[in-house]
Amino acid sequence: MGIVVMKFGGTSLADARKIRSAARRAIARYKAGDKVVMVVSAMGHSTDELIALAKQITPDPPKREMDQLLTTGEQVTISLMAMAMDNLGAKAISFTAGQIGMVTDSVHTKARIKTIDVRRIHEQLNAGRIVIVAGFQGVTESGDLTTLGRGGSNVTLVAIAAAIGAGECENYTDVDGIFTADPRIVPNARKIDRISYDEMLELSSLGASVLHNRAVEFAKKYNVPIHVRSSLHNKKGTMIVAETESMEQILVNGAALKDKLARVSLKKVPDRPGVAAAIFHAIATNNIVVDDIIQTINSDKTAAVSFTVDETDLPDTRRVVGQLIEELGCQATFEDDIAKVSVVGVGMRVHPGVAERMFAALAKAGINIQNITTSEIKISCLIKREQGKQALRLVHDAFELGKQSIKAPVPSRKTKSARRK
Amino acid sequence: MGIVVMKFGGTSLADARKIRSAARRAIARYKAGDKVVMVVSAMGHSTDELIALAKQITPDPPKREMDQLLTTGEQVTISLMAMAMDNLGAKAISFTAGQIGMVTDSVHTKARIKTIDVRRIHEQLNAGRIVIVAGFQGVTESGDLTTLGRGGSNVTLVAIAAAIGAGECENYTDVDGIFTADPRIVPNARKIDRISYDEMLELSSLGASVLHNRAVEFAKKYNVPIHVRSSLHNKKGTMIVAETESMEQILVNGAALKDKLARVSLKKVPDRPGVAAAIFHAIATNNIVVDDIIQTINSDKTAAVSFTVDETDLPDTRRVVGQLIEELGCQATFEDDIAKVSVVGVGMRVHPGVAERMFAALAKAGINIQNITTSEIKISCLIKREQGKQALRLVHDAFELGKQSIKAPVPSRKTKSARRK
Repeated sequence: MGIVVMKFGGTSLADARKIRSAARRAIARYKAGDKVVMVVSAMGHSTDELIALAKQITPDPPKREMDQLLTTGEQVTISLMAMAMDNLGAKAISFTAGQIGMVTDSVHTKARIKTIDVRRIHEQLNAGRIVIVAGFQGVTESGDLTTLGRGGSNVTLVAIAAAIGAGECENYTDVDGIFTADPRIVPNARKIDRISYDEMLELSSLGASVLHNRAVEFAKKYNVPIHVRSSLHNKKGTMIVAETESMEQILVNGAALKDKLARVSLKKVPDRPGVAAAIFHAIATNNIVVDDIIQTINSDKTAAVSFTVDETDLPDTRRVVGQLIEELGCQATFEDDIAKVSVVGVGMRVHPGVAERMFAALAKAGINIQNITTSEIKISCLIKREQGKQALRLVHDAFELGKQSIKAPVPSRKTKSARRK
Repeated sequence: MGIVVMKFGGTSLADARKIRSAARRAIARYKAGDKVVMVVSAMGHSTDELIALAKQITPDPPKREMDQLLTTGEQVTISLMAMAMDNLGAKAISFTAGQIGMVTDSVHTKARIKTIDVRRIHEQLNAGRIVIVAGFQGVTESGDLTTLGRGGSNVTLVAIAAAIGAGECENYTDVDGIFTADPRIVPNARKIDRISYDEMLELSSLGASVLHNRAVEFAKKYNVPIHVRSSLHNKKGTMIVAETESMEQILVNGAALKDKLARVSLKKVPDRPGVAAAIFHAIATNNIVVDDIIQTINSDKTAAVSFTVDETDLPDTRRVVGQLIEELGCQATFEDDIAKVSVVGVGMRVHPGVAERMFAALAKAGINIQNITTSEIKISCLIKREQGKQALRLVHDAFELGKQSIKAPVPSRKTKSARRK
C-alpha cells in the first residue's frame, strides 16, 4: 500500500460537476488500497477574477496583500473538494498551507518552500482519510501567507510527494501528457511515454506549457517521478523521470516552437568590459525577460549583440535600448516577426548529426536560419515568424517524432565537440 | 491619542468604490491622530454565494469544511482593503484571525472566542499602520478555521476592542443608528442617542435586526461601548452603553414588531412532570426555535400550552406536534397569522403604568390582545398579524417615542410588582 499524491489543475476543477469527478477519481485510488493526498488549484478562472478585483482597487497592489487575496482561491477548492468526498461517502479533510506547516521564505508572489511539517498529513492518512491540500500557497515563519508563483500548484505537488516519501506524483490535466510537439500545429505529434527532467526543462523553456520549470526542477532535485495524465480518462500519460542511459538511444525526444518573439540587434557596441552587463542590467531592471543572447566580436574592436524578448515586451525594450544607444554610441535594429524552433533530446549528447539533420530539413524548404543557439541537449534556430509552424512540422518529421522513438543507428559515444559537425 | 476599532459590514463593502470609501473613512481617523483597527465582513452577498456553491456540491456540508470555505470571504475583503489604503497613500496591513491568534473553541459554524493574542496588532499600530482584521472568523488551537455564527463580525469588533483596550468601537452600517421603531413602518420613528445593553438585547430579540445579540452580550460583559453609525455620513449614531440611573427616567426607549410568527396551542395536555419538557425537547431536536411559551393550568388537571415559532418553521412544527398529540392524547390548533408588538425600556423597572398605557392604546383601536409576555424591561402583546403595523404605530405614539425622550412624571422608585398595575 503506497502513498499517491494527485494534483488537479483549475480547468479540471472549474465547476461542481468537475470537482465531484475529481473526487471520484481520488476515491477510486483510495479504494484500490492507496493512501491518497490530493493537491488542488483554484477553480477555473477564479485566480484571474481575484486579480481583476485587485486591479479595480489599485494598479499596483502590495505583494503581501496580493498573496493574502490569491490564497483564498485554493482554499475555496479544498473545502468544496472535502465536501464532495464527504457527499460521496469518503472520509476526507482539507488543509491550507498554514495548516500543514508548508513554510516558505517571505518573497511574496514567488516564495520558495523551506520546510513541510508532514505530521498532520501522516496522522490523517493513518486515520484512513483522504488529505486535500491547497496548492500554490505557503506560509512564512511569522504566519504571513505567500504564493509560489506561476505553476505553483505543481511545486506543491512535487514538494509534498518528496516530503511524505510518495513513490510517484500524478499531475491531472486537460491534455493526455507531454507531446513530441504541439498537436494543434503538428497533427501527427505523438504522446511521449518517458522524458527526462532535463529534456522537460528545455521543452518548457522553449514553449511547451504543460509544466512550469520550477516544479520540474524540484522533482529533479528530489528525484520524484511526475506522471502527467488526463483527468478525463484512465490511460497512462507521460512519466517525467531521472535520465537513464537507455534514453540516450533516442536522438530527439521533442520539438517546440516559440513564435511570439522579437529581436533586438545592436551594432558597433564598444568591446570593453562591463558594456554587456550595463545593457542587460538596464533591461532586467525594467522587468523585461531576455530569451537568448548572441554576441560576436568584430575585427574593428566593436561587438554585435543581438537578443530576443517576448513580443509584448518590445515597446519597453525599445524605450530602454533607445536610451542606451545614445550613451554607448551604437546602432540598434528591432524586428518583431521572429520565431524559434527547437529540438530537444539527451541523445544528442552522444550522437552526432542532429544539428546537421535539422539545418538540412529547414534549408530544403528554403527557410533561412537567422541565429542558432544550443545547449548540451537542445538546438534552437531563429527564423521568420511566418515560417514558424511549417518549420516545426518539418523538424518534427525530420526526426520521425510522429513514429515510435527513433533510435540512433549505433549507440556510439562520441565527444561533445563532434556531435554538431 | 486613543485606539478606535471600526467595523464595516458587507453592504458597506459591496464593491471596489465602497471599499475605497471605507478606507478613506479609516484614514481620516488615523490622520486625526487615532490608532485605527478596522474589522471587515465579506463583500456584499459573497458569503451567500459561497454557501450556494457548497450547496451545489452537497446538501449537508461538513461544518469544518463549511468554515474553511466561508472564511475566504473576509480574507478577500481584508486584502482588498489593505490595497485600497496603500493606493490612498496610507500604511496598512491585513490579518486573518489566525494571524492575530484569535483562538476559539472548535464548535464549527458557531465558535466562541477564547483568547486573542494582541501583540501583533499593537506592534503594527505602534509602527504607524492601520490594522485590518477579518471579522466572523477564528482559529482553533490546532489551527482549524472556525466562524463565529450570525453577527460574527460584530463579535470580532467587540472582542478586539475589549482585548486591545480600545475606549470605543464603531459599527458602520447602512442605517443611521438604532431607531425607536422600524422607520419603514413608523414614519416618525426617531434615532435613539443612547441605549443600554439590556434594552438593545431585548430589542434585537424582538425583531430589531441591526446588531446580533452575541455581540451585545460580549460588549456588556467587557463594558465596551458600541457606536452604531452610518457609513454614508459623519453624523453621530446610537451609543450602546452600560445602564446608568438616568436612563431609568425614560419610560420606554423603543418599540418593535415581529410579524412573521405562528402560534401552536395545545389543549388537554396531561398536567404531570416532564410533559412540557418532552414537547419542547422534540421541537428543539428538530431545530425549531421557539419564541414565547405560555402555559396555564385548568381545573380539570390538564394544562393549556401555547407557543410561537417563526412562520417558516410552521410546517416542521405541525409534523412534530402531530406525532406528540397522538402520544399525549391532547388537542392542537395552529395559527399562522400572528404578530408580536413590544415596548422596551429600563424605566419600566421603576415606573408604573407602562403596561396599562400600552393595553389602552391597543384597546382603543379595537386590537385584541391574545397573549401577553413580559420581562423586567419589556412588555410584548401577541395580536393578529394584519393589525401588527398599526399596533406598532399606536404603541410608538402612546409613549411619544417620536419626540425627544419622554420623562417619567416623578422619578419614583416603585416595587416591581407595582409597575404593571
